[in-house]
Amino acid sequence: MSETLSLLEALIRRESVTPNDAGCQDLLAERLIKLGFTDERLNFADTQNLWLRKGQQAPLFVFLGHTDVVPTGPLAAWDSPPFEPTIRDGKLYGRGAADMKGGIAAFITAAERFVVEYPEHKGSIAIMMTSDEEGIATHGVVKVVDVLEQRGEKIDWCLVGEPSSDQKIGDVIRVGRRGSLCAKLTVLGIQGHVAYPELAENPIHTFAPALKELTEEVWDHGNQFFPPTRLQVSNINGGTGAENIIPGQVEVQFNLRFCTELDEATIKARTQAILDKHGFKYDLQWRLSGNPFLTSQGALIDATHEAIESVCGFQTLDDTGGGTSDGRFIAPTGAQVIELGPLNASIHKVNEHIGLDELEVLSRIYQQILVNLLAY
Amino acid sequence: MSETLSLLEALIRRESVTPNDAGCQDLLAERLIKLGFTDERLNFADTQNLWLRKGQQAPLFVFLGHTDVVPTGPLAAWDSPPFEPTIRDGKLYGRGAADMKGGIAAFITAAERFVVEYPEHKGSIAIMMTSDEEGIATHGVVKVVDVLEQRGEKIDWCLVGEPSSDQKIGDVIRVGRRGSLCAKLTVLGIQGHVAYPELAENPIHTFAPALKELTEEVWDHGNQFFPPTRLQVSNINGGTGAENIIPGQVEVQFNLRFCTELDEATIKARTQAILDKHGFKYDLQWRLSGNPFLTSQGALIDATHEAIESVCGFQTLDDTGGGTSDGRFIAPTGAQVIELGPLNASIHKVNEHIGLDELEVLSRIYQQILVNLLAY
Repeated sequence: MSETLSLLEALIRRESVTPNDAGCQDLLAERLIKLGFTDERLNFADTQNLWLRKGQQAPLFVFLGHTDVVPTGPLAAWDSPPFEPTIRDGKLYGRGAADMKGGIAAFITAAERFVVEYPEHKGSIAIMMTSDEEGIATHGVVKVVDVLEQRGEKIDWCLVGEPSSDQKIGDVIRVGRRGSLCAKLTVLGIQGHVAYPELAENPIHTFAPALKELTEEVWDHGNQFFPPTRLQVSNINGGTGAENIIPGQVEVQFNLRFCTELDEATIKARTQAILDKHGFKYDLQWRLSGNPFLTSQGALIDATHEAIESVCGFQTLDDTGGGTSDGRFIAPTGAQVIELGPLNASIHKVNEHIGLDELEVLSRIYQQILVNLLAY
Repeated sequence: MSETLSLLEALIRRESVTPNDAGCQDLLAERLIKLGFTDERLNFADTQNLWLRKGQQAPLFVFLGHTDVVPTGPLAAWDSPPFEPTIRDGKLYGRGAADMKGGIAAFITAAERFVVEYPEHKGSIAIMMTSDEEGIATHGVVKVVDVLEQRGEKIDWCLVGEPSSDQKIGDVIRVGRRGSLCAKLTVLGIQGHVAYPELAENPIHTFAPALKELTEEVWDHGNQFFPPTRLQVSNINGGTGAENIIPGQVEVQFNLRFCTELDEATIKARTQAILDKHGFKYDLQWRLSGNPFLTSQGALIDATHEAIESVCGFQTLDDTGGGTSDGRFIAPTGAQVIELGPLNASIHKVNEHIGLDELEVLSRIYQQILVNLLAY
């Protein structure tokens, strides 16, 4: 059995449902301390964070990951117990196999092989790990980044081992993510009886044209890296339940996934301009979940393209789709950030798995990226 | 103390909250049997209905009323117990004083005085009473009308003693009511994640332009008797509560108060045409609460106008505003129907009341209408 597979099995056996780490980080730290990494724990509230670093010099390369996994869902739906790693038909099954203990195992053994082969490598290598990426993520990577920034510890290159691949390992890497901005809107009217609409102000009616405009707005046309910004209304609720009462207010939630053509302030201003046109009173609360980020060029992208081509024999696709990730907390520091990891088809589902050969290929790609960037 | 006041007090003491009659109809029947009325009970399910008639000939004049009252609300908010009739400052306080035991007491004593004065009057006089007008009204007047129609008992003139007056008794009479049509609409989409709108179909978005059109539609321009037809959306609910999920459907309820320019079939067809334009799937359920009705001219209107002018010295205003009433069940039989009763400012509220002088004026108007129509 390979080192990578053996490590992945050990990680899956630890039931680290968010925000629990269940000893995963101890296991990783034990292995890397032996190879000259320092071991630092940066725990906040219920979240465990790990910072392992080898070397003091720039440039600093970081493998970023999370040891927590999403809940299993109904156990009966799994063909084998989710925390008992099981091999069938060339695949390893277990919760976290793809998201993202597979990526962790692959980059840990890649780092091990690299530092053994190049003990005098350039710059520094670090491992950053959190136990709350799948949860609210308020005490995880965002806090670790704060600590590093305060002491001037600067990340140059960050590779997130999240499952980016589509059909085969390395066919897609994420070079950025859209931003995510959430809004809670309350449209205010005057309650009344449907038989006397002239004595009331129906907020569903006053809001209707604004709703149409919001959903039809062309926010931008995207750019070469990003699809166009999109707004989606996720919730709308107004009414007392009674069929003869005009409600006093309507509650609306919407979300914008926005690209680098827009920023938070512009979106807010344009949204308010649409609402203000229609002459109703409202309350609007915003929450920024993450700004868009993009690594369009640089040594990290080049090294990754070359590594995938040399290990797999094809060219990878740079992509910015999907949800958000902990990369959003690293990018604002000025670091180059990409995501490269297992196939994402089975993540968050029952019978989550990773192909045994995929695991080995992924680890070889990671190792080659280190070679491309840090071999002397 | 007047006969009318004394009868009203006796009625208020009976706690006839919908659908209970609490002995009110027995009291009325006892009085009128002595004057030659027949006593028929037409009870259905939990609802008590009374049909008292004097005479076999046409034309048939009917006083229509309901003995049930709405709940009191918090007792502590009343200045005197709601079922203990109390006189303060020239007003009688109690639940039902205005809606509509005041009207009942006034027309019962009016009928009594009339038949004593004109024992050989023309045509027939009847009293129709239900104990479920304030509730769902499915076993009340609508059923009594069925019975009468089945045996060919034809109403010519119906006076509903509902509180129609605004500032003083007789200043406003209702000569018709708008129709009421309720719709429950489910707009169907495809659930998904806000980050991948291309894999979902957001029903809030597909419905938005249709909602705008529905709320902006000019259904008609009304006519000399009715205000324009109005649509009001009373409820809209879509979303899982989560801010990152595109919902699979949206539930919408709306109501149309429509005038005699439109009918049920036309409204349904026009609504569906608006919805069908926008290319989403939906389910639409309708419920007709009542068709519009109008008594624009005839002997009943003339007699009422004359009676108000002779008793009060002013001209009344014909009106079709407000909600609906049991008159909607009588009008389709071809009868002339009007509503004339107490001031409506205190109905359904705490400290419901009627002025003592108003009660007497109302009874005199009712009596004069009988004289105008049925005196030989």
